Amino acid sequence: MDILFTNATILPMTAAGDEPRTFTGAVGVAGNRIALVTASGSEADAFRTCSPGVRVIDCTGRLLMPGLVNTHCHAAMTLQRSYADDIALMEWLNDYIWPFEARQTADDVALGMTLGIVEMLLGGVTSFVDMYYHENRCVEVARRLGIRAMLGCNYFDNNVDEVLPEAEKAVALAADCDRIQIALAPHSPYTVSPENLRRGKELARKWGLHFMTHIAETRDEVRIVREKYAATPVEHLDALGMLDDKTIGAHCIHVTDSDIRTLARRGVAVSHNPQSNMKISSGVAPVEKMRAAGALVTIGTDGTCSNNDLDMFEELRTAAFLQKSATGDPVALPAYETLKLATVNGARAMGYAEGELGVIRPGALADLIVVDLQKPHLQPIHDLVSNLVYCGKASDVDTVMVDGCIVVENRRVAGVDLPKLYADVAAAVERITGR
Amino acid sequence: MDILFTNATILPMTAAGDEPRTFTGAVGVAGNRIALVTASGSEADAFRTCSPGVRVIDCTGRLLMPGLVNTHCHAAMTLQRSYADDIALMEWLNDYIWPFEARQTADDVALGMTLGIVEMLLGGVTSFVDMYYHENRCVEVARRLGIRAMLGCNYFDNNVDEVLPEAEKAVALAADCDRIQIALAPHSPYTVSPENLRRGKELARKWGLHFMTHIAETRDEVRIVREKYAATPVEHLDALGMLDDKTIGAHCIHVTDSDIRTLARRGVAVSHNPQSNMKISSGVAPVEKMRAAGALVTIGTDGTCSNNDLDMFEELRTAAFLQKSATGDPVALPAYETLKLATVNGARAMGYAEGELGVIRPGALADLIVVDLQKPHLQPIHDLVSNLVYCGKASDVDTVMVDGCIVVENRRVAGVDLPKLYADVAAAVERITGR
Repeated sequence: MDILFTNATILPMTAAGDEPRTFTGAVGVAGNRIALVTASGSEADAFRTCSPGVRVIDCTGRLLMPGLVNTHCHAAMTLQRSYADDIALMEWLNDYIWPFEARQTADDVALGMTLGIVEMLLGGVTSFVDMYYHENRCVEVARRLGIRAMLGCNYFDNNVDEVLPEAEKAVALAADCDRIQIALAPHSPYTVSPENLRRGKELARKWGLHFMTHIAETRDEVRIVREKYAATPVEHLDALGMLDDKTIGAHCIHVTDSDIRTLARRGVAVSHNPQSNMKISSGVAPVEKMRAAGALVTIGTDGTCSNNDLDMFEELRTAAFLQKSATGDPVALPAYETLKLATVNGARAMGYAEGELGVIRPGALADLIVVDLQKPHLQPIHDLVSNLVYCGKASDVDTVMVDGCIVVENRRVAGVDLPKLYADVAAAVERITGR
Repeated sequence: MDILFTNATILPMTAAGDEPRTFTGAVGVAGNRIALVTASGSEADAFRTCSPGVRVIDCTGRLLMPGLVNTHCHAAMTLQRSYADDIALMEWLNDYIWPFEARQTADDVALGMTLGIVEMLLGGVTSFVDMYYHENRCVEVARRLGIRAMLGCNYFDNNVDEVLPEAEKAVALAADCDRIQIALAPHSPYTVSPENLRRGKELARKWGLHFMTHIAETRDEVRIVREKYAATPVEHLDALGMLDDKTIGAHCIHVTDSDIRTLARRGVAVSHNPQSNMKISSGVAPVEKMRAAGALVTIGTDGTCSNNDLDMFEELRTAAFLQKSATGDPVALPAYETLKLATVNGARAMGYAEGELGVIRPGALADLIVVDLQKPHLQPIHDLVSNLVYCGKASDVDTVMVDGCIVVENRRVAGVDLPKLYADVAAAVERITGR
C-alpha cells in the first residue's frame, strides 16, 4: 500500500550551506522507497489520485525526518541493563557480566534482542549495527520486528571456530531480506590475534560483508597493542589490511593525529558512543578532529551495561555537548552537523550509497520517523533543528516507518505484546541470575 | 481530600548505607503532608477506613518517589529556547539575547514562566529555584500551577533600584502561600558591585529570604574578580559576608580547594548544572571534591538558552556521567548519590529542614511523583535506582503531587490548555522577534 504523509514539517537532511533545512509539504512512499517529496499541494493531490488505496497520514504539527541510525550496540544486553553499575571494571566482569553471559542461552539472546529493538524503534531508530553472539538467532527477530539491521558476529580467539560458521549460517538466513546484513565482528585488536582478525576479514570479503571492531577504546588497550605489536591499534589494524570503507570502528578515542588521517584515508566509519565513553570513563573521542580530517563519524549507543539505554536522541545531544565541553568551544559540533552523523553518515557506514538512506528524497529507501512537536519542551520553535537535537526525546517519536512499512504508530510497536515481553524478560533474568 | 497510593514500589530516599532502597507498600497523604508510609496491607486498609472520601491511586507496576528539585533555572527563558544556538558568546548576547529581553514585557515573562513550569511539572520537578526579572509577576503563575518555587529577583548594578522594591512587593504577594518563597538574586560577583551585593543581602536578612548568585561559572569571571578585588569569587563574596546556609551558588566550576572548604564551612548550597556547563563550554565543576569536602551539592538545569530544556532526569544522568568522565573514575558519583542531590539536598538548599521535603516519610511535605516502570527502557529491573538515574525519562512520570495536591495526572497538567499555551507563546515570540 502506498502512503502519503501530508502537512508535515519536513527535515530532509539534504540541505547544504545556508539552504533552508525544513519546509512544509508532503512525502509519498511507494513500496519501500520514497516516490515524492514536495511542497506543492497539487503534486501531493496528484500522488493521491494516482495511488489507489493510498493511506494518507496527516502530519499537521509534526515533523517528518529520516530515521536515526545507531552504528554500534549490543542490543541483546538489555537483559543486563543496570545489572552491575558503579562497580570497578574487574569485579564487574568477573562477578557479573561473564557469569551472566555464561548462563545465557541463544533464546535469551533473541529475547534481549527483541527488547532492544522494541526500545530502539520506539525511539526513532530505524537502522542499527549490532555486535554480539548468537546473531544468527537474531536474524529472525530483526526480520519479524521490521527494523533495518547489520548483525555483527562477535568473536574472540577462543570461539572463532564456532562463530565463523555461525556467521555463514546467518548470511544464508538473511539472504532473502534486503533489510538485514551480516557482518564479521572480532572483539578488538588486543583480544583477537592477527591470524583471527585476518580470518574474519577474509570471510567478510568472500561474502561482501562489513567488518567491525572496537578500536582504541581505552588507554589500556593502546598500551597492550603497543607492547605486543609496537604499533597503535589503528596502525596495527591497517598493517593487517583490516581498514577500508567496509570497516566500522567503535569508539576510536585514544587515536593519534596520524591514526585519524589513516581512518579518513581508508574510509573507515567511526562509531562515536559518547554516553558509554562518559559512563565508564573511557575518555573523550576527538570527534571534531576526525570530522576536520574528513573521517566518516557516526553515532552509536553502545550496550545497555554502559549507557544504560538505546536512546539515540540522548546520544545526539551528548555528542554535541561533550565536544563543546572537551574542546572548550561552544560552537563545536553544531546541532545540524550532529544530526547528520546519526542519519546521512550512519547510512553510509552501513554501506548505503549517498542519497540511498538517511535522507528524504525521491528514490531513497523509506525509513522515516514522525516527531510530535506539540510538547512543552519543543515550544516555541525558533530553530527546529536546535529544538530537535538539544531538546528532542525518544518519546516524542510517534510513528516509525522502515523500508516502506509502518512499524510504530501512536507509540505502539506493531505485533509486540509489551506486558508479555516484560514478563518473559523478567523470567529469563530470574533464571539466569538465580535471584 | 486524603489520598492513598497503594501497591507502589516506594523509593523514600531515606535509606542509609546498605539498607534496601525500595520496598512495596502504600503512602497516605492527609492535607499537604505525608501521613502514612507502610509496607503493611492492614495499615493501608486502616488509613483507608479512617479517611472518609479518601481517593485511592493504585500504583501497581509504578514507582513512587519524592519529586525532583531544580535548584537553578531561568524558567521564563523558555521563550528564547533554541533562539540562538551554536553562536559565539558576544554575538549571542549582542544580537540575540539582549535585544530579545529588551522587547519582552512582564506579561511575556509570565507566559514564558508558565511554559517552563508546565515542562517541569510534566518531567517530575515539584520544586524549583528561579532567577530572572519580573519575578513578582511570576508569583501568581506558580501559585496557579501548584508548583513549589523559590523566585529569585535577579538584578545588576543598573537596575538594582527597580528590582529591590519589586522583590519587597513579591514578598507581600507570596506572604499567604507557603509553597512560594522570594529570594534576592544579584547576577554575579563580577557584574554587581560590593555595595549592591550588600544591599541585596541586607534585604534578604530583613525578610528572612534566601540569596543566590552565579559563582565562578567561567574563567573570565574568575580573572575579572581577581583583577578587581585580588580574590577568587568565593573569597570576595565571603569577605563581603554573603555566604551562609541561605545562599545558593550556581555553577561553582572554577573554584580552588580553599574555595571548596569555604563553601562547605558556610553551608552554601551549590547548584551544579552539568548540561549547561557542557553546552556553553564553561568547564566541569569539581562535584566529587565538593561532596568529599561536605559541601551541599544540588542539581539545576539552568535556562533553556544553554541546555535547552528543563529536564531534571537528563540532568541527573549527565551529572553522573560527567563526573565519571572528568575524574576518570567510573565509580564516581554513583546513581543513588546522584538522586540525593536532586531530592534530599535540593530540599535543604531551599531551606527545608532535613526530613521535611525531598523524602517520603511521615510528616514530610507531600511532593511526590509516580513513575511508570512499564517501558522498554526501564526493563528488566535488576536495580531500580540505576534504571531511574541512567535510563529514566521525564516522559516516564505520569502523576505529580505538590503539597498534597495532584497537579499532573496521566501526563496532563491540571488547568492548562496546552494548544492555547503554545499559540500564545508563538504569538509572543513573533511579536518580540518581529519575524
